[in-house]
Amino acid sequence: MPDYPEPLARLILELKRLPGIGQKSAQRIAFHLLGAARQDVERLAQALVEVKDRVGLCRQCNNISDGELCPFCADPGRDPGLICVVEQPHNILPIETTRQYSGLYHVLHGALAPLRGISPEQLKISNLFPRLEAGGVREVILATNPTVEGEATAAYLSRLLKPLGVRVTRIAMGIPVGSDLEFADEVTMTKSLENRREM
Amino acid sequence: MPDYPEPLARLILELKRLPGIGQKSAQRIAFHLLGAARQDVERLAQALVEVKDRVGLCRQCNNISDGELCPFCADPGRDPGLICVVEQPHNILPIETTRQYSGLYHVLHGALAPLRGISPEQLKISNLFPRLEAGGVREVILATNPTVEGEATAAYLSRLLKPLGVRVTRIAMGIPVGSDLEFADEVTMTKSLENRREM
Repeated sequence: MPDYPEPLARLILELKRLPGIGQKSAQRIAFHLLGAARQDVERLAQALVEVKDRVGLCRQCNNISDGELCPFCADPGRDPGLICVVEQPHNILPIETTRQYSGLYHVLHGALAPLRGISPEQLKISNLFPRLEAGGVREVILATNPTVEGEATAAYLSRLLKPLGVRVTRIAMGIPVGSDLEFADEVTMTKSLENRREM
Repeated sequence: MPDYPEPLARLILELKRLPGIGQKSAQRIAFHLLGAARQDVERLAQALVEVKDRVGLCRQCNNISDGELCPFCADPGRDPGLICVVEQPHNILPIETTRQYSGLYHVLHGALAPLRGISPEQLKISNLFPRLEAGGVREVILATNPTVEGEATAAYLSRLLKPLGVRVTRIAMGIPVGSDLEFADEVTMTKSLENRREM
């Protein structure tokens, strides 16, 4: 069978490197782009390059930002006494969606995973300390994921931060709201019992 | 909630225009690209533009091609006496995968759909006639999809082509191999009965 024209084969290859895009999806997208208006494809290519050119990390919290400071750190309406530590920039969205949190963030860009060679030096932790040393921070909320890596990272940070005299908390793990105990796995059910509260 | 930086928001918007990519996938891909090596993102952007620059349509059959003739039309080993008509370039792949077909193709780039305003003039039909008039074509196989639009297109082409004295055939519809009658819908089962063959 003759192969695809070389530029098409290369586009399919590049698309397959993206997360969640397999051979079929890559083919489908590539054929769609072949039939799309030239200016639409150029706009996508432009958007790709610009995101690398113009988006960097916030100097203070490592969140993605197109300025020195991200919109959270730059907003005088946010409470600088609260810092919520997350693994990745996209972990901020679900927290913001609750509309219950008005503090600042700190993005680690990863979690500890010794087996995959991710040690504390690989995480963006160092610029968290000047924020605490500057004073005025009442609480650090550790909102790393409830996974082995996220738990290890939370435990590590807790050991580092508590000696500084700041309150360190961890988000709760338990049965999801609207779910049924029947569907809870053993570990989640255990956490849910451990984290029980007075009523 | 502060929005994403503008270049990131724009990239997510552009990615969402791609088939099969929703808000969550677009976010996931955009964040992946933010963290990817600059040269990888540039290579993807380059591949996008090049596919528009360097891939056109085969002069003879309208298949995608980076030359005047597509690899099928340019291959002297293919049988020019057989033309298989398909709706889209990507419909060729499943036919080639069978390794049972050695003729040429003709790509319509669509199917008749009066309700969506797709009339015969919108399809790439006109350059099919010179191929038949040149002589030597024994059979035209109509391999448009087994949908309302594909059937209408096949019926339309059949009426146009039969007066030219060429044999016109339609691919068979029926129960998929390895499936069970239990799962066949009414229309497929009907087609399967209609298309029954002597054993």
